[in-house]
Amino acid sequence: MSVADVFAEPDTTREAIMHATYVALCEHGYADLTIQRIADEFPKSKSLLYHHYDDKDDLLLSFLQYMLDEFQTGVPEPEYATAREQLQGVLDHILPDELEPDREAFLAAMIELRAQAAHDPDYRAYFSRHDAFFCDRLRTIIDRGIAEEVFRPVDPEPVAEVVLTIIEGAMLRRSTAQLDDALPTLRAEIDAYIDQRLHAKDPTR
Amino acid sequence: MSVADVFAEPDTTREAIMHATYVALCEHGYADLTIQRIADEFPKSKSLLYHHYDDKDDLLLSFLQYMLDEFQTGVPEPEYATAREQLQGVLDHILPDELEPDREAFLAAMIELRAQAAHDPDYRAYFSRHDAFFCDRLRTIIDRGIAEEVFRPVDPEPVAEVVLTIIEGAMLRRSTAQLDDALPTLRAEIDAYIDQRLHAKDPTR
Repeated sequence: MSVADVFAEPDTTREAIMHATYVALCEHGYADLTIQRIADEFPKSKSLLYHHYDDKDDLLLSFLQYMLDEFQTGVPEPEYATAREQLQGVLDHILPDELEPDREAFLAAMIELRAQAAHDPDYRAYFSRHDAFFCDRLRTIIDRGIAEEVFRPVDPEPVAEVVLTIIEGAMLRRSTAQLDDALPTLRAEIDAYIDQRLHAKDPTR
Repeated sequence: MSVADVFAEPDTTREAIMHATYVALCEHGYADLTIQRIADEFPKSKSLLYHHYDDKDDLLLSFLQYMLDEFQTGVPEPEYATAREQLQGVLDHILPDELEPDREAFLAAMIELRAQAAHDPDYRAYFSRHDAFFCDRLRTIIDRGIAEEVFRPVDPEPVAEVVLTIIEGAMLRRSTAQLDDALPTLRAEIDAYIDQRLHAKDPTR
């Protein structure tokens, strides 16, 4: 499930608010975002927005939690024949060689939101839940691979932590520095790490 | 050389400005920083600050470049007997299990500055130089280890890219989410990656 899927075809008022927040955040980024700019993307009563949320951070924290809830309970993930393919599928989706402009704008906004967590305990609590969820998802894929005997019987925890850290580091670098040339190199080395750590049948590879 | 060393004992006016910026940034973070707050930490004429810098971002970009220049040409690094010890020394310094309050505050401010690069081309250009410099430094250590025959003759580029990405991902996670419990696990797995990739004499390790 991609982020764009989460906000497609809003039905309820809450979904419409979340959709408006998504659109406004991609367009304006965090620093220039205001509740008014979110309201501009919202087809219903503007006062509803002001009534429900104290300020833009209150609305953005609700937006982040909504997204995480959708990832936890929403549209099912694509099915993969093996855990190895599933792990590659996750990396292909999160770290493509090129990022479409919409996803680039959304990633930039997410980096700005993440930086709020450096001084705001509510954002920090959210990103702690976020990281715990995605680390757990990676661990589950590794556990599957071990059960299927395509992965070696490693402790999945440290591998999941390193893969999550690489993913977040790569997203940060891509969004805040020139990384495009190095991205395929980086991706190949991540694959080599996973190969060597998880599924080298011949460990001299 | 640590960041605190860079700003110790300012002699010239420029060094005094950079020291004042460092202190104010650690105390207030990026969002709440103003040129006035930097001036409050500056023992000389305040008007000097306003004269030299257009706004806080102009001053902060000058501050970042000053820091990078110092890392490139300043105080020599500690000497290590082998490249393996040097790489461990870098990781020990950058990813200690616990971070003193000063370094924690500085890291938080650096994450906020880095997030500016998601929408500001000047910050983006700076962090591109920053990443290129630190990637090159890691590559040099790996090259040294290959020359000393303590590392296997790998292509140093992808390994340096992955180590830099893990370091930046770990700094981001530490500053914006609860990571303390996972940090020793993460560090042990980074060491295992380096072991397996660079100096496993017995490649079945």
